[in-house]
Amino acid sequence: FRSNCFHFFLQGKGGNKPLQSDKPEGFLQVERILTFQLLPKIIKRRVYALKRLQLQSANIEAKFYEEVHELERKYAGLYQPIFDKRRDVVAGAVEPTDEECEWQSDREEEELAEDLQKKAALEEKQAESAGADDPKGVPEFWLTIFKRVDMLEEMLQEHDEPILKHLQDITVKFSEPEQPMSFTLEFHFEPNGYFSNSVLTKVYKMKSEPDATDPFSFEGPEIVDCEGCKIDWQKGKDVTVKIVKKKQKHKGRGTIRTVTKEVPQDSFFNFFNPVKASPDGMDEDLDFTLATDFDIGHFFRERVIPRAVLYFTGEALEDDESDLDEEGEEEDEGDFDTTVSI
Amino acid sequence: FRSNCFHFFLQGKGGNKPLQSDKPEGFLQVERILTFQLLPKIIKRRVYALKRLQLQSANIEAKFYEEVHELERKYAGLYQPIFDKRRDVVAGAVEPTDEECEWQSDREEEELAEDLQKKAALEEKQAESAGADDPKGVPEFWLTIFKRVDMLEEMLQEHDEPILKHLQDITVKFSEPEQPMSFTLEFHFEPNGYFSNSVLTKVYKMKSEPDATDPFSFEGPEIVDCEGCKIDWQKGKDVTVKIVKKKQKHKGRGTIRTVTKEVPQDSFFNFFNPVKASPDGMDEDLDFTLATDFDIGHFFRERVIPRAVLYFTGEALEDDESDLDEEGEEEDEGDFDTTVSI
Repeated sequence: FRSNCFHFFLQGKGGNKPLQSDKPEGFLQVERILTFQLLPKIIKRRVYALKRLQLQSANIEAKFYEEVHELERKYAGLYQPIFDKRRDVVAGAVEPTDEECEWQSDREEEELAEDLQKKAALEEKQAESAGADDPKGVPEFWLTIFKRVDMLEEMLQEHDEPILKHLQDITVKFSEPEQPMSFTLEFHFEPNGYFSNSVLTKVYKMKSEPDATDPFSFEGPEIVDCEGCKIDWQKGKDVTVKIVKKKQKHKGRGTIRTVTKEVPQDSFFNFFNPVKASPDGMDEDLDFTLATDFDIGHFFRERVIPRAVLYFTGEALEDDESDLDEEGEEEDEGDFDTTVSI
Repeated sequence: FRSNCFHFFLQGKGGNKPLQSDKPEGFLQVERILTFQLLPKIIKRRVYALKRLQLQSANIEAKFYEEVHELERKYAGLYQPIFDKRRDVVAGAVEPTDEECEWQSDREEEELAEDLQKKAALEEKQAESAGADDPKGVPEFWLTIFKRVDMLEEMLQEHDEPILKHLQDITVKFSEPEQPMSFTLEFHFEPNGYFSNSVLTKVYKMKSEPDATDPFSFEGPEIVDCEGCKIDWQKGKDVTVKIVKKKQKHKGRGTIRTVTKEVPQDSFFNFFNPVKASPDGMDEDLDFTLATDFDIGHFFRERVIPRAVLYFTGEALEDDESDLDEEGEEEDEGDFDTTVSI
């Protein structure tokens, strides 16, 4: 029954345009306007004064969020030694001491596992995986996370998997103070046969002040744009395209020849070549794709990077899922409708 | 298509206990445990090291949220002059200058209102409300907000309304540094015939560090308890009780007499006499009531107090509702499931 107060919440703004002209809302709007317009002039005047004060609040709020961003920069520095250690353990560059590995493992879980193993005769499989003696670090750490998190798994294709086995770390960098607010996701790869980049980057640009045309909708910084990077694929290794063969008939001679052509192909690595926002904001499919991309960027920053091991073990997934269940239940109860908008 | 990154989000933890033993989740858990337990011992050992690092992160995160709380204290001071001015305009203690009331009002809205007025012959009503000449400040400012916000309107009873006409301001105070984290809602009343208090208070206590038994579930400070205040009702004015008459028959003599008895009655003012959490956490009804109370406290703090005028005019309601619509749509699309848990 506890209420979480500081939970950073991603508000997807994608694809809600058609709803804004829905009848119930339109009706509400008319009601609201009427109620306000029917106020005596002398009171309306005072309410305008209150709205001007509200504008001042919105500008102070923007400064607050800038300071929160600064705090996040500061704490990124404090987390860094922990993340560095994680990277080294995952890559096998460092073997943790016995003390560093002490963990009160769950007796119940171990018994459950033993029990299930007996029943399902899974010893063989275990022997097999144990047979790969002297594995380095935690093999396929990041790939396992990609496979376990629905949002990432949806982007993942079979041809991406051998490449992601070379992913060694994901980090986030925040923009410098006085610079336009942004954050950069960095995907660090060990040398591999697919591309020559050691780091692939994705920058998310944010708008951190109230919009002049709609200042009251300001609720803190929003992702408004993103930028990928060029991947220097080894010849024939680019998984974001596939080669299709086409037969062409020569008009004059009637001879047939086969030509090859590159066409786009689904791949996680398209994440580094995002679509551009439609300038008029009218392309809903495009905007929806972009909104999903922003959600994924935010999810890497807020969830995957800070608590990767919990996605590897699956513990974070259970938390996320029980949140979802709650959400569903709350809506059934009908009393918690407003929680989603706080 | 913009994604909001800093949106403070209230996560209601109420009433989700029965779901935690649901089959799908139980199945997931078994799968997760098996996957982990089947890892070779040498790798399991390294994952324990990563989990210990994760504990360090959680403790740093707790410090981050303490600093955010400090920032909120600092900004509360910056907002205060604006809120004071709002209070004075609402109460009619100050008449804003022409410059302070300048507002580019929406031409379309005015025309729509004029149009509707003509059609519905509402001039009479307007004349009537304009007839109340020289109204003080913005009459029924806070009561109007209570009526417009569903979450508050649900608590509101007819007998509360005349009392809430005397509500002049709602403010929030944050706990001092080094003190246990909490915030206090203060409801300021003008002298009235119902009770002698000038301020009614509700304190929300927060837990701002990872729980020893489940440190990885930490997502920032959570409301864990609240405390109301004693209302010094004038004789016969307490709307949280009603008087019922009962007929009693004297056992010996058989005579009948009428006795009166006070029984609890629904009222917003029960907000200042909250239920106590069940010590064993087993009373789901109680916990649900408390979770709702925490949501309301959070809603006052994060929405109503910072942007009261937008609830008075209804503008904030439209934003909240279009958020809800999005939410619904997102679930239909099926791609945004995780957004609710971020």
